[in-house]
Amino acid sequence: MKKLKIGIVGAGRIGKVHAQSIIYHIPEAEVVMVTDVVEAAAKALAEKYGIPAYSTDYMDIVNNPEIDAVLVCSPTPTHADISIAAMEAGKHVFCEKPVDLTIEKIKKTAEVAEKTGRKLQIGFNRRFDHNHGKVQQLAKDGVLGNVEIIKITSRDPEPPSPEYAASSGGLYIDMMIHDFDMAMFLAGCDVKEVYAMGTSLVDPRIGQAGDVDTAIVTLTFENGALGVIDNSRRAAYGYDQRVEVFGSLGMAAGENDGDSTVKVSTAAGVVGDKPQYFFLERYMASFIEEMKQFIAAIVNDTDVPVGIHAGLMSVVLAKAAKKSLDEHRPVKIEEVME
Amino acid sequence: MKKLKIGIVGAGRIGKVHAQSIIYHIPEAEVVMVTDVVEAAAKALAEKYGIPAYSTDYMDIVNNPEIDAVLVCSPTPTHADISIAAMEAGKHVFCEKPVDLTIEKIKKTAEVAEKTGRKLQIGFNRRFDHNHGKVQQLAKDGVLGNVEIIKITSRDPEPPSPEYAASSGGLYIDMMIHDFDMAMFLAGCDVKEVYAMGTSLVDPRIGQAGDVDTAIVTLTFENGALGVIDNSRRAAYGYDQRVEVFGSLGMAAGENDGDSTVKVSTAAGVVGDKPQYFFLERYMASFIEEMKQFIAAIVNDTDVPVGIHAGLMSVVLAKAAKKSLDEHRPVKIEEVME
Amino acid sequence: MKKLKIGIVGAGRIGKVHAQSIIYHIPEAEVVMVTDVVEAAAKALAEKYGIPAYSTDYMDIVNNPEIDAVLVCSPTPTHADISIAAMEAGKHVFCEKPVDLTIEKIKKTAEVAEKTGRKLQIGFNRRFDHNHGKVQQLAKDGVLGNVEIIKITSRDPEPPSPEYAASSGGLYIDMMIHDFDMAMFLAGCDVKEVYAMGTSLVDPRIGQAGDVDTAIVTLTFENGALGVIDNSRRAAYGYDQRVEVFGSLGMAAGENDGDSTVKVSTAAGVVGDKPQYFFLERYMASFIEEMKQFIAAIVNDTDVPVGIHAGLMSVVLAKAAKKSLDEHRPVKIEEVME
Amino acid sequence: MKKLKIGIVGAGRIGKVHAQSIIYHIPEAEVVMVTDVVEAAAKALAEKYGIPAYSTDYMDIVNNPEIDAVLVCSPTPTHADISIAAMEAGKHVFCEKPVDLTIEKIKKTAEVAEKTGRKLQIGFNRRFDHNHGKVQQLAKDGVLGNVEIIKITSRDPEPPSPEYAASSGGLYIDMMIHDFDMAMFLAGCDVKEVYAMGTSLVDPRIGQAGDVDTAIVTLTFENGALGVIDNSRRAAYGYDQRVEVFGSLGMAAGENDGDSTVKVSTAAGVVGDKPQYFFLERYMASFIEEMKQFIAAIVNDTDVPVGIHAGLMSVVLAKAAKKSLDEHRPVKIEEVME
Repeated sequence: MKKLKIGIVGAGRIGKVHAQSIIYHIPEAEVVMVTDVVEAAAKALAEKYGIPAYSTDYMDIVNNPEIDAVLVCSPTPTHADISIAAMEAGKHVFCEKPVDLTIEKIKKTAEVAEKTGRKLQIGFNRRFDHNHGKVQQLAKDGVLGNVEIIKITSRDPEPPSPEYAASSGGLYIDMMIHDFDMAMFLAGCDVKEVYAMGTSLVDPRIGQAGDVDTAIVTLTFENGALGVIDNSRRAAYGYDQRVEVFGSLGMAAGENDGDSTVKVSTAAGVVGDKPQYFFLERYMASFIEEMKQFIAAIVNDTDVPVGIHAGLMSVVLAKAAKKSLDEHRPVKIEEVME
Repeated sequence: MKKLKIGIVGAGRIGKVHAQSIIYHIPEAEVVMVTDVVEAAAKALAEKYGIPAYSTDYMDIVNNPEIDAVLVCSPTPTHADISIAAMEAGKHVFCEKPVDLTIEKIKKTAEVAEKTGRKLQIGFNRRFDHNHGKVQQLAKDGVLGNVEIIKITSRDPEPPSPEYAASSGGLYIDMMIHDFDMAMFLAGCDVKEVYAMGTSLVDPRIGQAGDVDTAIVTLTFENGALGVIDNSRRAAYGYDQRVEVFGSLGMAAGENDGDSTVKVSTAAGVVGDKPQYFFLERYMASFIEEMKQFIAAIVNDTDVPVGIHAGLMSVVLAKAAKKSLDEHRPVKIEEVME
Repeated sequence: MKKLKIGIVGAGRIGKVHAQSIIYHIPEAEVVMVTDVVEAAAKALAEKYGIPAYSTDYMDIVNNPEIDAVLVCSPTPTHADISIAAMEAGKHVFCEKPVDLTIEKIKKTAEVAEKTGRKLQIGFNRRFDHNHGKVQQLAKDGVLGNVEIIKITSRDPEPPSPEYAASSGGLYIDMMIHDFDMAMFLAGCDVKEVYAMGTSLVDPRIGQAGDVDTAIVTLTFENGALGVIDNSRRAAYGYDQRVEVFGSLGMAAGENDGDSTVKVSTAAGVVGDKPQYFFLERYMASFIEEMKQFIAAIVNDTDVPVGIHAGLMSVVLAKAAKKSLDEHRPVKIEEVME
Repeated sequence: MKKLKIGIVGAGRIGKVHAQSIIYHIPEAEVVMVTDVVEAAAKALAEKYGIPAYSTDYMDIVNNPEIDAVLVCSPTPTHADISIAAMEAGKHVFCEKPVDLTIEKIKKTAEVAEKTGRKLQIGFNRRFDHNHGKVQQLAKDGVLGNVEIIKITSRDPEPPSPEYAASSGGLYIDMMIHDFDMAMFLAGCDVKEVYAMGTSLVDPRIGQAGDVDTAIVTLTFENGALGVIDNSRRAAYGYDQRVEVFGSLGMAAGENDGDSTVKVSTAAGVVGDKPQYFFLERYMASFIEEMKQFIAAIVNDTDVPVGIHAGLMSVVLAKAAKKSLDEHRPVKIEEVME
């Protein structure tokens, strides 16, 4: 069997995760080159996993005729340009989220995907999580009846530095973007209106930097269902990731994953495990699964499971939420669609 | 020991509950009279519990010099007038919620309580629930640190008739009022702003009658915390009653109560009990406890655990929610305080 | 309605429990006399609950022609004699467990019940527990298929004094007797063989007094199923009461009851409630229910739910277990049936 | 880094599992040869994972001077001979359980390990399970105080064929051997006496073949603690794997692992996942971990985590259990140690 040849742009944390997924879990593919603007990073990743080539220029991947698909794991502002260049060079693309911070560029990326007919998958890994995925499947299969209320709780274990918060685009685009995508995944449709609350209760410097660290956003879905997302940048007990779908026939709700099921009963109470610490622990299996499905979509020439529409709408919701917060009123999606 | 002498106005469902609490669980008090505009109802309750006197006129209780305290369990529009008459006759009053549908009358009732110095307790029984009460205690004791997010889910097992929905004042005042009170109880402070979403997904006739049956309301508390309540008039799996408080040091969350802890593992899955069916099952212990504390407040001349401020603010929040829904914007509390 | 008139022999802890059940929860009956060899105890109980008469001589109850039924709540060695006297005087009897420490006397008591046709119910209250009762119902209804393995865990929160342990007849008769009865209740049949292990790990003085405080007993049921009971006189986390039935179609298992369902998530873990402290908290509802069913059996002239056969077999199993421990071998039931 | 060179004897299910663990998860080692008496099996495994050499003769591994360590995954009767040959040829050995069905050969294997100084690890993978391992760690760390009662439940999802049951050596050696090892692992000491019950309730043909399919075995540990294991060859709800350790300060208990944490609440109840189906799903992570620790013990020249004493004692307990069942009495370990 001829293996799919993969190039990875960006040798940071998420680039490593995807490299590992392919090398250890996807025999149908192999990583043949990695690039990073920091040469040492590219070299280190190449050596760690025996990747035969590395470079500081992503165009070395784009121009390599042997390479079938590119994983875009570089910083956000470069996502769209690299994805476009790769698709125009005939390669399939897996692009990390957010595709871009502007709606124009996301639409441009979508057009190139359309024009070239290349696969373009967006990195919303949580759709492949065993808990969230099961809830969605139950909703989709009609076990819950008509979906009426969707609730998502997503809290990080520790806040980022105020500098990061200031430069990341803010909580709605940097953190809640996953939950916006999850909400539409669970509802099976888009959102038509958003109302956002946000405040800085975790670290006042985050507020001073113009961002929020505690937020509740409500959603009205196109099918009439209502939704709510709550986020905090800090949870003392770890990474809190729960979704709940309520419908006319019942409810499906996922609890957090711990490292074990053990309960310790002492004079102090009955103590169970905390949630797994952060996304690398909690969502590792989902990162592997999203990559498996990306490779399978190429090999079998089927649709990718998470397309550019999800990449677009998640950013649209983040922008609508920011506008809602700023203007202190509910915001319709078309107001930010330009 | 001389027993406190109690009169009950209203021999309906909730009047029976309180009669039973006193007769079976509160040896310090005795029910000496019950009235109801439907004579057969008053008579039936008197006979069932051996209450020595009954009447169709609540003034027979108000004017009875032997009676120390009155439980106002009649229809909502009569709550304030009866409470006022009873306090002016020197009696302590336990008044069911809502105190009134107008803010003026609630304020008037508060003034009479102030003027007469009588005890006036409002029937927010859920504060006395073992689960919700424990969550509140943990928050109050500082175990959770600064309170940042409050979440309340409250769903009835079956919708009321559209006629009832039309006449009850609507979901926010009729159903969510309990959750508004719970939110302030858990936060330990009042709410300053409300944003309400509501729709009719359960029964279109409820929507046609001008009410909603599915609702999400977000709250901004005076201490800066954020909150969200979701309600549905129908849950296929029974009465869903959960609260969650998240703070800087952690989270406390209650699950529903079932009739047993038994899990049945078969080829079909691992099946546990549904939530207890409805409020008489789920909250019976809280009804008993609120009455015990009302009687104790009289006997010991201490403050009642749920005063008229709670009665006022819960109605204010319901009105703010309705205004928010109607005007499709966040509403500040002072806008409805007149 | 004429109320059944009840006399209670023994004003100790369990006598009080039953008095309270009747007074507060069973309108069809009333307690008209209580006796105790300690006059102050009888008087105190009578005054506390407004029982019109008390005495130090149980024969005052036996000879009172007005009394319909007697609750035998006195010390174990007097159970059989009082029950027999009461039945011969034409009264129905509720007798606490164990009926007697000798098999002869239990058989004698059974004969008198047979001869006089009086109701005779034995106080195995745990059969009426919501959790254990549900497990049994599932087994009985065939939901679990053929019953194959029964597991019972029963651990007290704190050990008794060594003096008590020495005088109580030992762990098997004093504590495990409840579990022997539960095992047969769950299996729906008697036990044919017992193998007992026991040791003193909790308090060496219990061992010095000739008793064990930690024990595992295995059972072979007449229907071929296997069973195991484990007991400890001390559990640091409270009163541990769990049963599990495993059959060809599945398993039903009950967890402990806590005071709430609240989970507290902090840096220390996810902490839930300990089991309710001891039998008065954990089993109060079952004490009420067993008394309701006793009264109902008299009123409706139906079979009592727990007859003398259960009283006999539980003591037989305790004796077989003791013999097994002493002789370090499995013991067949007929060996101790004399 | 020079990689450890591994040969695998036996290309069946467990051989594949270990090959995969090394290839995907242990960069410090590589599989260089696989043998199987069935050539097609050896070839298939070699091709699937790119193993450079295969053969039908395990001596090709034993005599290969490049190979550092051998994984003995062949049928039980060959375990000891292959292990001995490999160690005498200077290789480290990982040997699947049981080491042998005779105590003599296990002792012989132990002597060769001692004489040659080679590492010899036995395949009790469950010690590396996240749940069981956590319970053991809590016991070892003293969190539970003095260990007093150990309970192990182990039930397979489906019974083997009667032919397999007849040839496997029986339930105690074939299935409960894992639980015997787990019991000693949790207790931190050996067992001194065994009492076994066993019967055929699942499939009468298993009974006719001279084996049992439903069993309860009680244990007395050298430290005075008591233990009980229950096994069934069939659980309608899947693979049931739970351990519980009870001590003077508390209890640690593990629940089964499901595929998700999702609870589905409908009119039918609150339904959670069944246990993961069988050992390849449930224990995959433990298979990887045991292999990691075997390789690490060689690389770092430290003690293996599961030595030949565990291999010996588990078989001794299985033999004692069989003798106990046959002779219907408790059996001391020394009776079967020869």
